[in-house]
Amino acid sequence: MPPSTETLTAERILEATEEVLRRHGPAKATVVDVARALGVSHGSVYRHFRTKAALRAAVTKRWLDRTSQTLSAIAADATRAPQTRLRDWLAALFEAKRRKADDDPELFATYMVLTGETGDVVDEHLADLTGQLTRIIEAGVASGAFTAPDPRAAARAVFHATGRFHDPGYHRVWQRQGVEDDFTAVVDLLLRGLRAPS
Amino acid sequence: MPPSTETLTAERILEATEEVLRRHGPAKATVVDVARALGVSHGSVYRHFRTKAALRAAVTKRWLDRTSQTLSAIAADATRAPQTRLRDWLAALFEAKRRKADDDPELFATYMVLTGETGDVVDEHLADLTGQLTRIIEAGVASGAFTAPDPRAAARAVFHATGRFHDPGYHRVWQRQGVEDDFTAVVDLLLRGLRAPS
Repeated sequence: MPPSTETLTAERILEATEEVLRRHGPAKATVVDVARALGVSHGSVYRHFRTKAALRAAVTKRWLDRTSQTLSAIAADATRAPQTRLRDWLAALFEAKRRKADDDPELFATYMVLTGETGDVVDEHLADLTGQLTRIIEAGVASGAFTAPDPRAAARAVFHATGRFHDPGYHRVWQRQGVEDDFTAVVDLLLRGLRAPS
Repeated sequence: MPPSTETLTAERILEATEEVLRRHGPAKATVVDVARALGVSHGSVYRHFRTKAALRAAVTKRWLDRTSQTLSAIAADATRAPQTRLRDWLAALFEAKRRKADDDPELFATYMVLTGETGDVVDEHLADLTGQLTRIIEAGVASGAFTAPDPRAAARAVFHATGRFHDPGYHRVWQRQGVEDDFTAVVDLLLRGLRAPS
């Protein structure tokens, strides 16, 4: 690619990195490949990301953030009843992960490798997601729809109990006939567990 | 090993197969290794198990059955209240899987490979376990402790919702600090979901 006249931003580097990862796979992709794709020196890339590990962590965070951002709008949507909001949020999480796995299996496999090596980034992502769930459950407690002495603990339990429908390790299960029904059955049971006694 | 004078039973072959798998790993273990360990010809092994695949499936089934048998006693124990029975059963499942992973990591890794190649055996095992769960939930519905219009579907949901605590793919999580609390939080939530309205 010819040298670009656009300013070299972190975002442009991350876009190029994702493309390089998609093309070469996580084992072979190098900072030099990224620099070449952008038509800049590898030193220019290192001015934005000090190490290859930092670059890989940043591109992984960007990929994970795409999911969290979509979901945060649902978590904050006070026009939906908390039960609906919880159900919609879990369905959107499942759908987002499944779409990533289906639409671009190579990139999904790549990010499964990257998330394995960037523990901190994944931990922050999970904390972000359970934080969103906590706010939905708190809203339900405030409105009297849910009973949860510790909304944060309840959010964690809901997140763990629905792992089959968002943990990338289950991506093969997501293709199976009936997985939607399985999802609904688990969510129904969890919502009954959260429901305030009438 | 010298030729044995004991009768060559399927059980003896399976014992030897497990030992060979433990020693050589799933990729390298052969029927000839098993025959040699028993001091018999490989033809004698093939009289009991017609193919290498059949032998691997049988040894996997035996390994999985060890878990189901322990659990079936709890599922059938009418002296425990259904809520206690459900909790004890899930705790025993978690404990059995965790013990297998901790006590003999090589054999556990071997069986993770074998379960990946013997889909039918695994499906039967999962059907057996959810069948046991169904009977516990039916007992709870009969006693008035649980509400579940479809106990089989509820059992499936409980099994899926607790995957983090029995699916071998999570074996690394089982070592973490706090995993017991996570387990208890999920089970508490599920039990509240099953509880009949008072």
